[in-house]
This record gives sequence, C-alpha cells and structure tokens, in this order.
Amino acid sequence: MKRREILAGVGAAALAGCAQEQTDSQVAASVETFEWKMVTTWPPNFPGMGTGVARMVKQIEQASGGRLKIHVYAANELVPAMEVFDTVSRGAVDMGHGASYYWKGKTEATQFFTAIPFGMNVLEMNGWLYFGGGLELYRELYADFNLVPFPAGNTGVQMGGWFNTEIHSVADLKGLKMRIPGLGGAVLERAGGTPVTLPGGEIFTSLQTGVIDATEWVGPYNDMIMGLHEVARYYYYPGWQEPGPTLECIVNKDAWAVLPADLQAIIEIASAALNDQMTAEFMARNAEALAELEKDSRVEIREFPPEVIEQMRVWTNEVLDELVARDPKAAKIYASFSKYKKKAVRWSAISEQAFLNTRSL
Amino acid sequence: MKRREILAGVGAAALAGCAQEQTDSQVAASVETFEWKMVTTWPPNFPGMGTGVARMVKQIEQASGGRLKIHVYAANELVPAMEVFDTVSRGAVDMGHGASYYWKGKTEATQFFTAIPFGMNVLEMNGWLYFGGGLELYRELYADFNLVPFPAGNTGVQMGGWFNTEIHSVADLKGLKMRIPGLGGAVLERAGGTPVTLPGGEIFTSLQTGVIDATEWVGPYNDMIMGLHEVARYYYYPGWQEPGPTLECIVNKDAWAVLPADLQAIIEIASAALNDQMTAEFMARNAEALAELEKDSRVEIREFPPEVIEQMRVWTNEVLDELVARDPKAAKIYASFSKYKKKAVRWSAISEQAFLNTRSL
Repeated sequence: MKRREILAGVGAAALAGCAQEQTDSQVAASVETFEWKMVTTWPPNFPGMGTGVARMVKQIEQASGGRLKIHVYAANELVPAMEVFDTVSRGAVDMGHGASYYWKGKTEATQFFTAIPFGMNVLEMNGWLYFGGGLELYRELYADFNLVPFPAGNTGVQMGGWFNTEIHSVADLKGLKMRIPGLGGAVLERAGGTPVTLPGGEIFTSLQTGVIDATEWVGPYNDMIMGLHEVARYYYYPGWQEPGPTLECIVNKDAWAVLPADLQAIIEIASAALNDQMTAEFMARNAEALAELEKDSRVEIREFPPEVIEQMRVWTNEVLDELVARDPKAAKIYASFSKYKKKAVRWSAISEQAFLNTRSL
Repeated sequence: MKRREILAGVGAAALAGCAQEQTDSQVAASVETFEWKMVTTWPPNFPGMGTGVARMVKQIEQASGGRLKIHVYAANELVPAMEVFDTVSRGAVDMGHGASYYWKGKTEATQFFTAIPFGMNVLEMNGWLYFGGGLELYRELYADFNLVPFPAGNTGVQMGGWFNTEIHSVADLKGLKMRIPGLGGAVLERAGGTPVTLPGGEIFTSLQTGVIDATEWVGPYNDMIMGLHEVARYYYYPGWQEPGPTLECIVNKDAWAVLPADLQAIIEIASAALNDQMTAEFMARNAEALAELEKDSRVEIREFPPEVIEQMRVWTNEVLDELVARDPKAAKIYASFSKYKKKAVRWSAISEQAFLNTRSL
C-alpha cells in the first residue's frame, strides 16, 4: 500500500470555507491520493472477468478524480491465482478480485457466496446478498481474515461442460476424469467420476491429449476463446453446478479503514456497477458466441437428460448435508441461503421462469 | 441548477503539487460543489423505485465527498409525474428518474428502452443496453431532447395483473376496462378490451368502485402495499406486457456538460449500481410478499392459458409492425433490439430457462 498525504494540512485549511457543504474530514480526504495494488485470479485481459475488472478500475480512477489509482495484476504477475486471498488478507496488496469458492480451503462456507450446485441464479443471488442478509454473513465470515468483500460480477448460468461421449444416464459419468472444481466435483465423485482441478491455462491441452475426458469452464464466449469446441464434441447444458456464480472484490481491512469515506463509497458503487455490467457483458457475448457455435458442425449442443439432473440433485443434497454437519459456519450461512431460496424459487417460477417458458409455446 | 465555485482558485493553486497524480482540471473540479434538483415519476418513498433513488442519491453524495448534492422530489412535489421529461429537457431541473415508455407521446421509440410486450427480461435488456448497441441508440434518441439517459433500475418480470373474473380465453378480455399503459394497452384493445392509463394513486379506488374491471401494476411487493389483493380475486402471471422494464436516470445535457469528469463518472457508476441493486431489491421483496400472498385465502394466483399468451403475442407483433411502419426512429431501434434479441433468446433458452426448468422436474 502506498499512501500519499500530499498537502493534506494545506488542503484542510484552504477548504475550511466549505464547512457548510462538507465536513472537515471529507475535505481533508479530498487531497490525499492512494495508489493501490490489486491481484486477480484471472489470466491477463481475460474476457469478461479481466476486462470487467479493468473497466471497474478505470471507473474508480475517473470517479475519484485520480485520487485512487489501482494497479491490476493478472494471475501469476505478482502472485499465483490461488494466493490472491492470502495476499490481500495479510495486506501485502490492498485489493483482490476472484471467486469466493476458490477459498474453501480456508473455510468451506465461502462457497455459498459464489455458487453451489442447484443453488440460485444471478437475480436470486443478488437479492439474497443485498437484501436477504447474505452480504452481512459474507462480511462476517471474511472479517476473520481481515478482509471486506463486495459482490462484483457474475457470469450468469454456466454451461454443463464439454464431453467426448454422450451422457444418456448417470452411468455414463462413471470413470470420467473431468475438470470440475468445488461442490460440483464432489457430486461427480458420487457418480463414480474423478473430479480434477486445473487452472484455465491447462484445460485445452489436457482435454486434447486425453489427460482429462471432459471439462466444464464458463460458457460459449469464454470456452470458444479457449478453443474447447475444437477438442470436444458434445456441449451439455444447463450448468447445474454453477447457476449464477457471483465474483468478488476483496479489500484488506486495514487499507479499507484508512480510506476516506468518499473513496470507500466509490469502491462500493463501482463493485455494484461491475456486478451489473459484467453480467450484461456475459449475456451479450455468450449470445453472440452461441450463434457462431451453432454453425459449427464439429459441435453438438445437448441437454442433460432429466434423470441425470434429478440424480445430481439428490447427490448435491447429500454433499450439502455433510458440509453443514461438519462446519457450523457453513450451517449458519446455508440456513439463511435456504430460507431465502425457498421463497425466491417460488417467485422466479411465476416471473422469470413462466415468462421464459412463453417463448417455448 | 445551483453551481458553487467556492475557493476554486485557491484550491487549484494549493493543489498544484499533485500534478504528478492529477491534471489541473481534475484538481480544480474537486473544490466545486453542485446542488442539483431531481424530479421523479414516483410517489414519495415509493417502495423499490423511490427508495432506490434515495439510496442512489445518498451514494452519489458520499462518493463525491458532498460535492454533488441532489434534492429528490417525488411526483407532484415540484411537477406532476408526466412532466418529468419536459422539466429536465428544458433545464428547469438537472435530473430525473422514471421510465422511458412514459414519454412515447414525445417520440414512440422511447418504449423500447423500458419494455415491450414479449420483449426481453432484465438480463437480456442489460446485455443489449450496455454491450449490444442499445445505450448508444438510447443516447442518440434523447440527444434531440437535450437529455443524457442512463439505465437505472429494473423491476424484473412483472405480474400480468389483477382480475375479478377468470381468464379462460381471449374472449374473456372482451369488454374489460383495464388499467394497462403503453403497448400492452394497444394489445388489450385488439382483444376488445378498453385500456385505461391511471396514475398509481388512483388505481385502488378505481378498482374497488368498479371504474375499472382489472389492472396491472408491478408485482407482489408493490401491489400488496397498494392493497390490490383486497379488491381483486385473481392474480395472473406472467407479465407478458413487461418482462424486464428498465428504469432511467435522465440528466439535462447542459447540466451534464458543466459537471467535472469525476462527478460525471460518479453519476454513471451510481446509475449502474442502482440498476443492479433495485433489481435485487425487487427480487427479495417480491419473494417475501408472494409468500405472504399465498397464505391469503381471498386471492387465487393463476397462469394465463397458453392460447391467451399465443394470441397476445400475435397481436403484439401486429402492434409492433404498425409502430415501426409509421416511425423511422422506432424502426431503427427495433431493428437493433430484434437482431440482438434473437440471439439472446437462444442463449437464455439453454442457460436461465433450462436451469429454472430443472426445478420443475
């Protein structure tokens, strides 16, 4: 963290005449500048996530009149992707961007704030986080790690993954070595598959050379840039494993505490703006990419059979039951998540779902 | 508009040492304060819309360190709801909040930026506006009226409306006097109904006294606060007429032009944050309200029969064909809307729709 207090005294004195409009602390804050470092879990210029973060950082610099400059580092530029949480937690850098479920090794309850299999879509997640008590629980959990989290981006419903064999029943998942992280992987394990965690940069080659048999990644936009449509034939939907993954900005608590209130507010609204605009970018770009993919004769787009979905849900519930039984923090958060979800599902059924289904009439 | 240039000279001189970090114009801007007026189309403290605007204005004040204060006026406090557009357009106030389809009397093409029947849901609308060319067309259309528009809120899919008779076929809509504005009203007219436009404050009494037979409004959260469940028996879904209505902030172009770049950026990201958070608020509060409503024995929640939906869509297409035939601006915007929508519908079908439908298995 590089904090500059240029002319702070002069500024506060010179601007004292504004007291009618502004408090002294706000005025004093307005002449301090901050240069922050932000580490992310994404490859450089990663479409959607990385480009979204770049847009947010630019908005923060503009909105602060240049008083808060944030230097963004892609995965491995400063630290590896999987060290983002620790690096921000101990204050080596001020800020990070990634997905909370990457940190389940720290405390398993983090997973609820990104996505769980058969969980909630983007609208439902946002409702829970901002107005259903989710964000308070998120902040409480992260406070133990000296971090302040903000919802900051969403891919929307992901795809179920790329396969080189058709999936007619759960028996077809047996023996499958698939790149699928988190709780989705635990569910695949119950089907007799072998979940593998691989960073983005290794997926293409692993699938091409047969090191893995299948993979899920994000959706048409990201997956095609990675070339997955060139090395797998069947593209399955829907992404039962990640129905509305929320991404996060994390800020070191000490860095946050010394930031003036106006710059804190700018980070808060810029994160919410990214939450809105990244979701929009994925919608528009996935729609474009899918139209291209459907012209590609190498690829067949398939829906998981209902009996596969039903069995995956049964296993998901088992996996969740075990998680909340062994982890009291997960139990507390899942209780809030589930209580809200039950009502949200009913509302979505007669609003979004019913409307979308009029299109299939 | 009340523009204060307190200590601008002193500030610029005192802060010249920051040139390495900030341009002179940014520094000069940081000591100007602005007091703006904002008129809205919503009743005072109107749930969701009015409370969302209040939240945004507070965020702007915090993010600007008190340099941009916006005084919000509910409908009729300064001007009636339906005069918001004109009032901001001529610069009598700086800013407004409402829905673009209220201004179809100015130019019919405004309707595409809120919602059209069987149009797009909130995620699809945001994709079109931010990343599909929609916002550029929106700004171009509003430039003729000296306005800069920003997407700023969404209710999500609305409900189809309150009725005191069951709707088995389109014949049941014949002779019905229903409060339903905009293109939805034009569609009802083709069914032999009589569309009526009433401001929110008159709906309850009109329905109670039989001045109207039916009404649509927003969704469970707003409708129950208004007491509509006390004066109508059948609550129909889905809201085919408004699948994802986007609300707007509008800023007078001259007011915008004199605003420093940092305050412009704050308005831009605060609008996007509201776009995110209002949608979230409606999701969470509608889910809560629906759970209450489903316990109320006076009300029956019904789905429109498929043949009613299908016929409404046929009439909608007729209404849209006539609109684009008579209005070249509408034709240009609808061409962009439709081209994007075709691809977005396909992506939504295998993502959101397919995921939501796994819940009905």
